[in-house]
Amino acid sequence: MPELRRDPITHRWAIIATERALRPKDFQVTAVAPPEGKRCPFCAGNEKLTPSEIYAVRDRTTPRDGPGWQVRVVPNKYPALRIEGGLDKRPEGIYDHMNGVGAHEVIIESPEHDFKLHQLSDGALLAAIETYRLRMDDLQGDPRFRFSLLFRNHGAAAGASINHGHAQLIALPVVPHEVRELLDGARRYFEFRDRNVFEDIVRQELEDGRRVVHENRDFVVMAPYASRLPFELWIVPRFDSPRFEATGKAQLISLVDALRTALDRLDRGLGNPAYNFIIQSAPYHMQDVPWYRWHIQVMPKLTRVAGFEWGTGFYINPTAPEEAAEFLRGLPEG
Amino acid sequence: MPELRRDPITHRWAIIATERALRPKDFQVTAVAPPEGKRCPFCAGNEKLTPSEIYAVRDRTTPRDGPGWQVRVVPNKYPALRIEGGLDKRPEGIYDHMNGVGAHEVIIESPEHDFKLHQLSDGALLAAIETYRLRMDDLQGDPRFRFSLLFRNHGAAAGASINHGHAQLIALPVVPHEVRELLDGARRYFEFRDRNVFEDIVRQELEDGRRVVHENRDFVVMAPYASRLPFELWIVPRFDSPRFEATGKAQLISLVDALRTALDRLDRGLGNPAYNFIIQSAPYHMQDVPWYRWHIQVMPKLTRVAGFEWGTGFYINPTAPEEAAEFLRGLPEG
Repeated sequence: MPELRRDPITHRWAIIATERALRPKDFQVTAVAPPEGKRCPFCAGNEKLTPSEIYAVRDRTTPRDGPGWQVRVVPNKYPALRIEGGLDKRPEGIYDHMNGVGAHEVIIESPEHDFKLHQLSDGALLAAIETYRLRMDDLQGDPRFRFSLLFRNHGAAAGASINHGHAQLIALPVVPHEVRELLDGARRYFEFRDRNVFEDIVRQELEDGRRVVHENRDFVVMAPYASRLPFELWIVPRFDSPRFEATGKAQLISLVDALRTALDRLDRGLGNPAYNFIIQSAPYHMQDVPWYRWHIQVMPKLTRVAGFEWGTGFYINPTAPEEAAEFLRGLPEG
Repeated sequence: MPELRRDPITHRWAIIATERALRPKDFQVTAVAPPEGKRCPFCAGNEKLTPSEIYAVRDRTTPRDGPGWQVRVVPNKYPALRIEGGLDKRPEGIYDHMNGVGAHEVIIESPEHDFKLHQLSDGALLAAIETYRLRMDDLQGDPRFRFSLLFRNHGAAAGASINHGHAQLIALPVVPHEVRELLDGARRYFEFRDRNVFEDIVRQELEDGRRVVHENRDFVVMAPYASRLPFELWIVPRFDSPRFEATGKAQLISLVDALRTALDRLDRGLGNPAYNFIIQSAPYHMQDVPWYRWHIQVMPKLTRVAGFEWGTGFYINPTAPEEAAEFLRGLPEG
């Protein structure tokens, strides 16, 4: 069983993921090349190589766990957390411990091995985003879970271990530290100014324009003012909504345009960089808070996080966000 | 002038380091191989390739900025922060901004290009650590600075851009977010239990033993209970002292043994992994707080931080710290 352990000083949790245990010798050998082509567990025809599917967008005539799907959701074969069992919260001397209970799902957005998310058709990208929404929404039915994060690692430098593109969804029994900070910061801003901080950010950025890469009716794609990383992009809704899971279809269609633009411009402008993106949505128990807004953070991995960033949480970013936005905005239409 | 910009939601600062500006094209080309041998700016004989030295441990008969040194401290040629000028704190609409004033020094611990820190002689390693202490102590004389971090990046995966080993010291005009958290957590623990949390950690770890790699009179080398990364190690003093800069010579001699053991075992056990280490010391204005203790965090870079960690601050660690400590403890003496 994986364990959740809390740091007694910072109160940050770590998942000690014994199911994917790496022993010292694992770190000394060169990494094994990831499976490709015929043996890729995420390719059409290889459905038996994954655990049985949780959900799929597929032709009605095709059977579960066979080909014929467009989007497929399966449990992670090496989950960081286990879906079964209770939390069993307990101390270990001065430390806090609980069982690593949670969901860990993989969302494969296309049966094609070499697809890029932003090159999917409008319909296929919408199906992928609707699947993200559906799975996040579904997991809130489990009373053990407080929060879920949808994330996507593209490229080895961003932590992807399987080349076939996919997103992941982790549902957790606690609200993570960084999320709590984001929430607390937004709540304090609202208490102080009686306005949603995301509303103020969107207004100022659209008026200023220097950090805006793209806008449509429902979203702004922008380089945040205090960008931690070169070419970091945020996709922020222009409407109030704390939880991504509550997003309606019309807005998801706008999101297809916003997400495609962000990923396409990073791809063309920087030569297919590794990236992570995450969907930051409010915890499950915060249905209607007026002070938060869900959003997407896209983080290209162009530089390496070094000791200074680790020790301080203070990022040294060698590219001004105004310059990043100007460059991405100026690329010819895709 | 580099800028400090504050995120309006999390209150995390970012340094927009325009002096080391990376433009879009810089991210597309393959990185230029770092200078080696004759052109390495940190090798003996090439002193003219760096800015003029701030401090050096050198033969009395040798002139400044020439060979004959054992440890040499120079300003970073591409500093993240500038030493001149005032902070000029000001708003930018809803955002907070100040000039990127601070110190950024490089501490070269040996004139030999290929040295490893833990393979230096006792005297040379002590000279290096004494130089760390001296520079951190010296910078507190500047009233603009609140905090300094000593860090060392070893290997490209840990962010090192020059192969010749070196540490770096950055002094900041603000106390960084993560440091504030560490301090707040330690202070709250003290308020609640009337004991220093580091004292309790050291006591429990020495009694338990499973996570201890090494101990001597003054220090414990241990894998922390909630290790974020595989083989993360902390070096914690067994004596109360919030600030590294206040450490006496006898303790620094013990630290030579503790640091050497930690780095040597990681090197031999895992095959010279990339690592960062940082010296976490209390801010300059906290001379005598009873609730904090300086310590060293060593973070091998064996896995990659991916979207989940970015989005949550929640780490998935595939190696239990008990297993990491057992392996490192069990290596034959170096």
